[in-house]
Amino acid sequence: MQSRNPATLSYEQAGVNYELIDPLKVAAQRAAAATGANLARHGFGEVSASRGESAYVVDVGPFYLASIVECLGSKALVADEMQQLTGRSHYAAIAQDTIAMAINDLVTVGATPLVVQAYWAAGGSDWFGDAERAQALVSGWKTACDHCGVAWGGGETPALAGIVEGGRIDLAAACTGLVNPKPRLSLGERLGPGDAIVLLASSGIHANGLSLARKLVERLPQGYLSEVAPGLSYGEALLAPTLLYSPVTEALWQAGIGVHYAANITGHGWRKLLRHPGTFTYRIERIPPVPPVLEFIARHAGHDAAEAYGTLNMGAGFALFVAAADAERAVAVARAQGIEALVAGHVEAGPKRLLIEPLGVEFGDDALQLR
Amino acid sequence: MQSRNPATLSYEQAGVNYELIDPLKVAAQRAAAATGANLARHGFGEVSASRGESAYVVDVGPFYLASIVECLGSKALVADEMQQLTGRSHYAAIAQDTIAMAINDLVTVGATPLVVQAYWAAGGSDWFGDAERAQALVSGWKTACDHCGVAWGGGETPALAGIVEGGRIDLAAACTGLVNPKPRLSLGERLGPGDAIVLLASSGIHANGLSLARKLVERLPQGYLSEVAPGLSYGEALLAPTLLYSPVTEALWQAGIGVHYAANITGHGWRKLLRHPGTFTYRIERIPPVPPVLEFIARHAGHDAAEAYGTLNMGAGFALFVAAADAERAVAVARAQGIEALVAGHVEAGPKRLLIEPLGVEFGDDALQLR
Repeated sequence: MQSRNPATLSYEQAGVNYELIDPLKVAAQRAAAATGANLARHGFGEVSASRGESAYVVDVGPFYLASIVECLGSKALVADEMQQLTGRSHYAAIAQDTIAMAINDLVTVGATPLVVQAYWAAGGSDWFGDAERAQALVSGWKTACDHCGVAWGGGETPALAGIVEGGRIDLAAACTGLVNPKPRLSLGERLGPGDAIVLLASSGIHANGLSLARKLVERLPQGYLSEVAPGLSYGEALLAPTLLYSPVTEALWQAGIGVHYAANITGHGWRKLLRHPGTFTYRIERIPPVPPVLEFIARHAGHDAAEAYGTLNMGAGFALFVAAADAERAVAVARAQGIEALVAGHVEAGPKRLLIEPLGVEFGDDALQLR
Repeated sequence: MQSRNPATLSYEQAGVNYELIDPLKVAAQRAAAATGANLARHGFGEVSASRGESAYVVDVGPFYLASIVECLGSKALVADEMQQLTGRSHYAAIAQDTIAMAINDLVTVGATPLVVQAYWAAGGSDWFGDAERAQALVSGWKTACDHCGVAWGGGETPALAGIVEGGRIDLAAACTGLVNPKPRLSLGERLGPGDAIVLLASSGIHANGLSLARKLVERLPQGYLSEVAPGLSYGEALLAPTLLYSPVTEALWQAGIGVHYAANITGHGWRKLLRHPGTFTYRIERIPPVPPVLEFIARHAGHDAAEAYGTLNMGAGFALFVAAADAERAVAVARAQGIEALVAGHVEAGPKRLLIEPLGVEFGDDALQLR
C-alpha cells in the first residue's frame, strides 16, 4: 500500500519494514512446515490446513489440540506515556489486550481456549517495583482469564536488562485449547457462496496499528491529550482494551450455530477478510460504526477509505462466516454476550476480492499475502 | 546466598534483584491459582499438584494436557558479543537453548512435547536483515524440533523498537504436550525413600547463570577469548547449546521405566533437587565431572562449592528420580540417547535437605523457595 501524498502516514513510514522481516518469515514457515511429520512418532498428525491460519492444530484422536503464542506489540508504550501524563496505570487494560491477541486468534480455528501462559519480560527488576502497575497487570490478567473461562497456567517474568529496554516490558501470551468435539473445527472447508459475513464490533484500535498511532502523536499539538471526542483523550481512547471474543464463539456453539470460518481482524485491517485460501468474492453491504479514535487516526494520517480499512479494524474486530440462515441468530448471540454485531454482507462465487460497497472500496487477490 | 568476601561475585551482584520481582511473582501465582476453577466450565479440571511445578497440567479426560512458556534469558547477548569477536553466528545453538528451556521443563511432568511455538521479538526490523544470523536461528530451531520429535507450529516475529533494544532479540518458546497414557504423570506422588537419583549430564552452563557469566567477563583481561581449556574460548564454551532431554524421557517410557519425579536443573543449580514439596533427605554420593566452563566460572567468581552448586548446574542438567531397581537401566537408556548419566545418590526418610557428600555441602529446607 502506498501513500498518496507526502502528508499521509503509511504503516511502513511508521517504522515497520516488512521487506526485512518477510524473508525470515518465509524461511521459518518452510522449516516449520517440514516438522509436522514429526508428530507421527507419537501416533498423531498435524492438521495441515492450519498452516497459515491463526493457530496451529494437531489431531490427537478424541479431539484437536490448538496452540499459539502472540505478542502484544507496542501498545504498552502508549500506557507508559499516559502514566507519565496522568499518573494512572493502564496495565489492567494492557493485560487484557495481551490475552486477547492470543485468544482471539485461537478461537478462529474453532478451539475452546483452556490455558494461558504469561510472558512478561521486563527491562530490569525495577519494572516490578512499581507496585500499582504490577498489581494492575496481575489483576487485569486474571480478570481476562476469568472472562474467557481459561486457566492461567503460569508463565515467565524475566528481568532482561540489555535485551528489553530499561523501564519497558515485552508482553506476550501463549494459549492452548481444544477443538472439542471435532466438528467444531473451522478451518474453512465449509465456507461457500451464500454464507453470511457477521462482523463483531471492536472497542477501538485494539492492539494493531499502534506504531502508526504512536507516530501520529508527533503531529498533534496536544499529543496524547488531544480530544478524539468530548472528554476523551487520544491516549485513553487508544487504551480501550481489546474485546475478548471467546465468550461469543463458545455461546455460538452452545446455540447450535456452526462457524464455517472466522477471521480475527488485526494487522492489515479488513484485508483479513480475504484470509481464507479459497477463491471467493466477499461483498460487504453494511459497515459498522467507526470508533472515534479510528476515525481520528484515519483523518490525521490522511488516509482515504482504502488505506484506513486496509490498515485498521474500523469498528470490526472479528469476522464470522456462517450459514445465511444462522446470521441473525449469530448477531443475537453476540449481543447477549455484550458484543455488538451486524450481518455485514455475504460470500459469492467469483474472483478473490473484497468489495466494501458503502465505501466504494475494493481489495483484490494480491491485497493480503500471509502464506 | 551471601558472598563470603568482597572479591566473590554473587548472582544478586550480577544484576538480578529477586526482592523486586518476588512480590509480583507471589501475587501472580495467587491470582493464577484462583483461575484453575474456570476449567470446570468446559468439563475439565486442573491437576493442582502441577501448580509450582515446571509445567501446568490439565486433566482433559483421555490424557493430561501440559503447557509452558519459557524465556531464553540473556544468553543471546553472549552470542552477539562472540559474533563481534569472531564473525560467526551462534544463533543455531541459541535456538536450541531456547527450545530446551521449554522442553526440558515440560518433560518433568511426564509429558511428551508435541508442539513448539517460536517467540522472536527483535529490537527492529533490521535484526532480521543479517541473513546468516537469521538463517542460523531458523535452522537451529528446526533441528532442535526434529531432535525432539515436536512440530514447530508457528510463532511470532515482531519488530519491537522502543521495547526491545536495537540490535537485540528477545527469544522465548511455548510448548504444549500430552501426558499419555495418564500413568506417565510424574508430579511426585510416587517419590519415596529408597528411590535412586539419576543425574543426566549437562553440556556446560546451559542457559542459566548467564548474568553471572557475563558479569565475570569484566574481570578477565582476555574477556570472552580467555581460554577455559586448550583451544576453547570462554565465549565458545558458554555457547555450547543446552542438551535436550526429551529423547531420554521418551526412551525411558518405551523401556518401561517409570519416572517418580524429575527436576530440570536450571536457576538455583542443585538446589533444584529440593524441588519436590515433600519432606525427604536427598543424599548424593557421586558427582558428575564438572564442565571446564563451569569450573572456570566458579573459580573466577570466587565461589566455594556451596555457592557453585547452589547457582550452576555443575555438570548435571537434569535429575530423574526412579525406583532403585531401575536406576542402572535408566543410565543405560540415557547413554543410548547420547547423554552421559550416573546414579548419583538416593532419597531417604528424614528432614528436607540435600547432602552432597563428596563436597561436604548441605542445603536445607530454606535453600529453595519457589512456591
